[in-house]
Amino acid sequence: MLSAVASAEAIASGSLSSLELIKSCLARISDTDPEINAWEYLDADSAIAQASMCDEIRKSGKAIGLLHGVPVGLKDIIDTIDMPTQCGSDIFLGRESDKDARVVENLRNAGAVIMGKTVTTEMAFYHPSKTRNPHDFNRSPGGSSSGSAAAVAAGHVPLAIGTQTNGSVIRPASFCGTFGFKPSCGVIPRTGILQTSKTLDQVGCFGRTLMDVALLTDVIGGFDQNDINSYPRPRPNMCKGASSEAPVTPDLAWLDLPFNDRLSSDSREGLDSIIDILGSKVTKMSAADQLSNLVAVQARIHQYEICLHQDQVFNDNWDKVSDTLKEVIKRGRKISINEYTDALSVKESAQDFFEEFFLEFDAIIAPSAVGQAPLFSQGTGDPIFSTLWTLAGLPCITLPLLVGKNGLPVGVQLIGPIEKDDRLLRTANWLQEFLSLEATE
Amino acid sequence: MLSAVASAEAIASGSLSSLELIKSCLARISDTDPEINAWEYLDADSAIAQASMCDEIRKSGKAIGLLHGVPVGLKDIIDTIDMPTQCGSDIFLGRESDKDARVVENLRNAGAVIMGKTVTTEMAFYHPSKTRNPHDFNRSPGGSSSGSAAAVAAGHVPLAIGTQTNGSVIRPASFCGTFGFKPSCGVIPRTGILQTSKTLDQVGCFGRTLMDVALLTDVIGGFDQNDINSYPRPRPNMCKGASSEAPVTPDLAWLDLPFNDRLSSDSREGLDSIIDILGSKVTKMSAADQLSNLVAVQARIHQYEICLHQDQVFNDNWDKVSDTLKEVIKRGRKISINEYTDALSVKESAQDFFEEFFLEFDAIIAPSAVGQAPLFSQGTGDPIFSTLWTLAGLPCITLPLLVGKNGLPVGVQLIGPIEKDDRLLRTANWLQEFLSLEATE
Repeated sequence: MLSAVASAEAIASGSLSSLELIKSCLARISDTDPEINAWEYLDADSAIAQASMCDEIRKSGKAIGLLHGVPVGLKDIIDTIDMPTQCGSDIFLGRESDKDARVVENLRNAGAVIMGKTVTTEMAFYHPSKTRNPHDFNRSPGGSSSGSAAAVAAGHVPLAIGTQTNGSVIRPASFCGTFGFKPSCGVIPRTGILQTSKTLDQVGCFGRTLMDVALLTDVIGGFDQNDINSYPRPRPNMCKGASSEAPVTPDLAWLDLPFNDRLSSDSREGLDSIIDILGSKVTKMSAADQLSNLVAVQARIHQYEICLHQDQVFNDNWDKVSDTLKEVIKRGRKISINEYTDALSVKESAQDFFEEFFLEFDAIIAPSAVGQAPLFSQGTGDPIFSTLWTLAGLPCITLPLLVGKNGLPVGVQLIGPIEKDDRLLRTANWLQEFLSLEATE
Repeated sequence: MLSAVASAEAIASGSLSSLELIKSCLARISDTDPEINAWEYLDADSAIAQASMCDEIRKSGKAIGLLHGVPVGLKDIIDTIDMPTQCGSDIFLGRESDKDARVVENLRNAGAVIMGKTVTTEMAFYHPSKTRNPHDFNRSPGGSSSGSAAAVAAGHVPLAIGTQTNGSVIRPASFCGTFGFKPSCGVIPRTGILQTSKTLDQVGCFGRTLMDVALLTDVIGGFDQNDINSYPRPRPNMCKGASSEAPVTPDLAWLDLPFNDRLSSDSREGLDSIIDILGSKVTKMSAADQLSNLVAVQARIHQYEICLHQDQVFNDNWDKVSDTLKEVIKRGRKISINEYTDALSVKESAQDFFEEFFLEFDAIIAPSAVGQAPLFSQGTGDPIFSTLWTLAGLPCITLPLLVGKNGLPVGVQLIGPIEKDDRLLRTANWLQEFLSLEATE
């Protein structure tokens, strides 16, 4: 199973055709997706046609892009002009968009094959989807980017795009054993993606290597004036970051967060063993007081804004909304504008806090989730170990470094300073090299 | 006077600040623009603020882009959110746009400083503007991208953007002695740029080196689903093309076109001397019969479409339209839809012809204009040596290789196969190296 980087190189050099690659992906999907259910919409004919076109372009001597002929899966809240976008809800059944999302434009510009739509939880919230964890079909893949994580983990596609408003990229990536990268808020444009929170919604990438998620982020990132969080400045060069050597040993921080007791014992042990190996490279500290109320602040903004953005949709389709989401909406509708604006200012103070904090540290090392993937019947898992960083818009990456007691993957998360995603990826590169050196010594 | 590439490198390395660069550009503008009149709108404070921001970003360790801190001029038909866009016509006096053009979004993403708006002829047509040729103030800079060419030639900015529907990039670049590059139709997105012909309008770049126009094109190019000529495929890598060595000596073609007799004697002699030096590398041939009526076809599409797109604007503002443009509109309104669709099919046949033609040749070598810049009183010059290639959407570049009898610059044009702009730039790189070697031997 080739990485995206290796696939793109092989296609560019002519040693692999996009058609061969797509056909092998389709074969794996057809073998395993009946049990995994990662795909909401898959049109094999369209994927084959796109791949053939990529191969023709290459043969003609015309330009080939950074992801030429490489398939990418899209969370089913990302609009495409040629496939339905149903957002995991009967409300949007059969919905077609007349525009591609900006990230899809950017993918086409890079020559990627749009493979199809991956399953999302209902409107990217908590109500579980049909997708199963490829490592154990009795387990959840996590959510809300359930299908994107599962499709990459199962080798259906080397790359997939998801979104995170709380922990919807990092958590499923950790549960499914893939890399998951949510860059700084504003790096990847959101035009054409379901809006659940204009303040918090952020786009992220799934892949099986660090360079793969870096490359996908470079391809889909960019300034988009129609996205209020997008910024009119350059974005970090992710591939350069991910392939850089750290000039000095990075300084890492471990925070004793008030919810660290939610961590399962085996995950805690695994993390402790990594922190032991890292020794003096990690500074352990208690979390600042001002971090303690941020979980509630995230919830308040998220709940208030989904009601703000989707009010009409909910009113017109109340019978099609799950009880899980109804509870969220009911809570959201009770939040006053003052409570909401107060929450926004706390969020800003948190951002100031982290700006100061990262003057001393390269990255925070933290759990990616509370433990291994939960049983399918128990929901998509707790996003708590993503909440703070998502709220502050910080870049986060999960690396599949640990194995839990049931043999399931467990990720380790690194969080970096805002808009310095390249430095975070450099630190991630350092960490995986350091640990693999330690392991072989 | 640093090139854009050298400026970006110096700013990235810290040996030059954007503020220093911008201030030196502003000083040159303030020294020479009272006579040249290249700028329609220039806000020194805004340019200084942008430059300071670029320097701050760099110092903060945040991302820097490919054109970080480098100033770019925009033809005044390209919308910006923070400056007026007046299209060289009283009709649009004081017009503000609430969106940046897509190319401006892409510039901001690369960290460029938007210096201001350069003078255009009236609605990018023939009626002359106030701009003078920096080499001789009694001469025209050409049109319609008059100010962009003049600003780059005068060292006001290293880079500027223009547009070409007939010969509005290549001709002024030739007259002003700069590089001018109009990539393949569809490479650079047009959303937010005055529409004079949806079929023919194409965006191009001015710079003082080959690599500079390549870099600017890489930065502003990209797929844009809102532009009907933009294509959902990768674009050629221009910088890679411009810095590549030709694997074998390129095969060039010289066409004896029916309008070659319009060429001034000194330009003809200059071109002949280059073709002599190139010897067997150039195949001279008479132009195919089907090329003879293309000039009329270009005019028909251009005239028909400007009436189509701007009908209401002309109706509401007839008294503000110049007599030159009124003549065009009157002709355009007389063209029937059948004549128009016939013209479109001839255009398509021409494209098929060139697709076949370029199986045998790397590039056509041709004049960039009929000669040196005309006197200011005589208008902006004849675009005839661009018409065919623009109609067919082929990539064209003019190189400032010759000097006319009055000491004024004269460009030499290379035209390549569509969507193989990188190969054209490689050939251009080869040509300039070959001629400079010949000159020094």
